[in-house]
Amino acid sequence: MEDSLIRKLVRSFPQGTDVFVGVGDDCAVVRCPHAEKLLLLKTDCVIEGIHFKRDTPAVWVGWKALCRAISDVAACGGTPAHALVTFATPKRLSMRWLQSIYRGIGRAARQFGVSVIGGESSRSLDSIFLSITLTGYVTVQRLALRSGAQPGDSLFVTGQLGGSLQREHHLKFIPRLAEAHWLTTHFSIHAMTDLSDGIGSDLPRMAAASQTGFEVNLQLLPRNSGCSIQQALSEGEDYELLFAIPPREEKRLLRRWDSTFPSTRLTRIGHMKTCSEGDKSTPLPTGYDHFSKRHT
Amino acid sequence: MEDSLIRKLVRSFPQGTDVFVGVGDDCAVVRCPHAEKLLLLKTDCVIEGIHFKRDTPAVWVGWKALCRAISDVAACGGTPAHALVTFATPKRLSMRWLQSIYRGIGRAARQFGVSVIGGESSRSLDSIFLSITLTGYVTVQRLALRSGAQPGDSLFVTGQLGGSLQREHHLKFIPRLAEAHWLTTHFSIHAMTDLSDGIGSDLPRMAAASQTGFEVNLQLLPRNSGCSIQQALSEGEDYELLFAIPPREEKRLLRRWDSTFPSTRLTRIGHMKTCSEGDKSTPLPTGYDHFSKRHT
Repeated sequence: MEDSLIRKLVRSFPQGTDVFVGVGDDCAVVRCPHAEKLLLLKTDCVIEGIHFKRDTPAVWVGWKALCRAISDVAACGGTPAHALVTFATPKRLSMRWLQSIYRGIGRAARQFGVSVIGGESSRSLDSIFLSITLTGYVTVQRLALRSGAQPGDSLFVTGQLGGSLQREHHLKFIPRLAEAHWLTTHFSIHAMTDLSDGIGSDLPRMAAASQTGFEVNLQLLPRNSGCSIQQALSEGEDYELLFAIPPREEKRLLRRWDSTFPSTRLTRIGHMKTCSEGDKSTPLPTGYDHFSKRHT
Repeated sequence: MEDSLIRKLVRSFPQGTDVFVGVGDDCAVVRCPHAEKLLLLKTDCVIEGIHFKRDTPAVWVGWKALCRAISDVAACGGTPAHALVTFATPKRLSMRWLQSIYRGIGRAARQFGVSVIGGESSRSLDSIFLSITLTGYVTVQRLALRSGAQPGDSLFVTGQLGGSLQREHHLKFIPRLAEAHWLTTHFSIHAMTDLSDGIGSDLPRMAAASQTGFEVNLQLLPRNSGCSIQQALSEGEDYELLFAIPPREEKRLLRRWDSTFPSTRLTRIGHMKTCSEGDKSTPLPTGYDHFSKRHT
C-alpha cells in the first residue's frame, strides 16, 4: 500500500519540530512560522531518459532531485524547510532502486535541514518520474528575486562553469545554500538566481525580469578546466549563484568572501546596464532548456 | 522557454492578495498567514496510461488533477490556497492539448479559490505526467486527521459510492470542500478522509491510523444505481467524505445536513470499535491501490 511504502522509505529521515503531521494522512501539516516570514514554494522534477538514465546510480538521482530545489530556495535567499516526494515507477522497477533514491534524498535532507513530510507514489507505464516539492522561509529583507537588478550593479558568479555532465557535477553538486545565506545576510543583493540552464539563458532571463541590459566580459567567465567559453555559457546544470550587487559593496564583498569561502571562486563578470542600452547587451549563446533539448 | 510557456498558460488565472511572487522566479513566494494557522501540503500526480488516456478530454484531466488535491485539503478541514503545476510531456504533444489541461486547472482554481503560482515543465520520453502541489490552511481546532476516531464514534459517508469510472465521476467530480468546511465548523469531526482508493481501503486505513476497529453494515452503503456492494467498496475514486463523529452529535448532524445540503445524501454506515475488537472488524474487500493495479 502506498502509505506504508512511503512511510517505510522515509522511516529514518529527521523531522523538524514544526512538523505537525508527516507522511500518512490526506495532507502533511506544518506549523506556520512568524507572520513576518514569507513562504517559498518550489516544485521540480527529474525524469528518466531526460535528466538521468536507468543506470545512473539511484542515490545520486535522489540527491540531485532534492538539491535542485534546494538550489532554487537558496537563490531566493531562503532556508529550505519541508519536502514532498512524488514518484511514478514502472512495475519492473526493484524496491532496492527506490530505496537508493530515498537514500539520496535523505542524505540531502539531513545535510540541508529539510524534513521530508509527505509524498505520493504511482505506477507509470515506462519511465521513472520523480517530482520534488520544497518549501522554504525567508524574511522580506533577505528575499532575492531575479527582478531586482539595477543598471550599474556589478555581476558576480560563484564557482566555475561548464562541463557539468562530464564531471558528474550535475548529479553530485552541493547547492550554494551557505553562500546564498551569507550573501543575503551581509550584502544588498539586488537580484540573484541559480545557474541551472546555463548563464547564457539565466543571465538574459534575470536581465529581462529586472528590465535591464547587461555587459559581460566573456574572457572573465570562470571556467572549469578543459571547458570553452561556449561550454561555460550554455551547457547548464552548474547550480552556481549569479547575482547583482551595488558597486559600492564590491570591495567589501571580495575581501570578506575570500576569508569566508576560501576554496570557492567568486568572479566579477560584468555589470547591468540601462534597459535602453539593453539592445547592446553582450550576445550570449542560449543555454540549455529542458523544453527544447535533451541530454541523457 | 519554460518560463514564458508557463506564464502564458496561467495568464488569465486569478491570484490571491497573499501572492508575493507568482510564476517566473526561482521560487514562488507567498505571505504567511497568522501564526495560529497550520499549513497543509499535498502533492499528487496523474499519469497517462494509469489515470487517464491520451484521448481523455484534456480539460477534465486538468480539472481532475487539481480537484484530487483539493479533495485532500478539504478532508483535513482546510481551505486550499496555492498550487504549483509540474508537467512533463513528449515532444509530439500539441500546445493545444496543454492549453486544455490548463483550462481545466484554471476552472477548478477559480471555482475553489486557488492561486496557481508556479510550476515547471519538462520533456518526457513517452507518457504525459502531471503533478500538482497544493497548499492550504487550517486552524488546529478544525484540523481533521485520519487518526482521531474513537471507539463508539458514528461513521458517516457523503454522497453515493461506486461506478466512478463508468459515470466519468473520476474526471468530473466536485471535491466536497463546502461540506467538509461546514462539518468542521459546526461539529466535532474526530477523523475524516476522502474516499480515493475505495472505502474498502480507506476505512481500514482510517481505523489503523486511529488504532480502532470498525463495524459497517454493508447493506447501508449508499450506492450509485447499478452498483453492487463490491463495487461501492472497492472501485475507488469516489472522492466522497468518510468521517467519524461522536454519537451525541448524530441527530443534530442529520437534521442540519438535510437543510444545508438537500441534494446530497449523508449516510450512517456503522461505527468505530475498540482496538481489541478490531480483529472482528467487518471484513472489507480491499479497494483500488494505484501501486498495485492499473485502470486506464
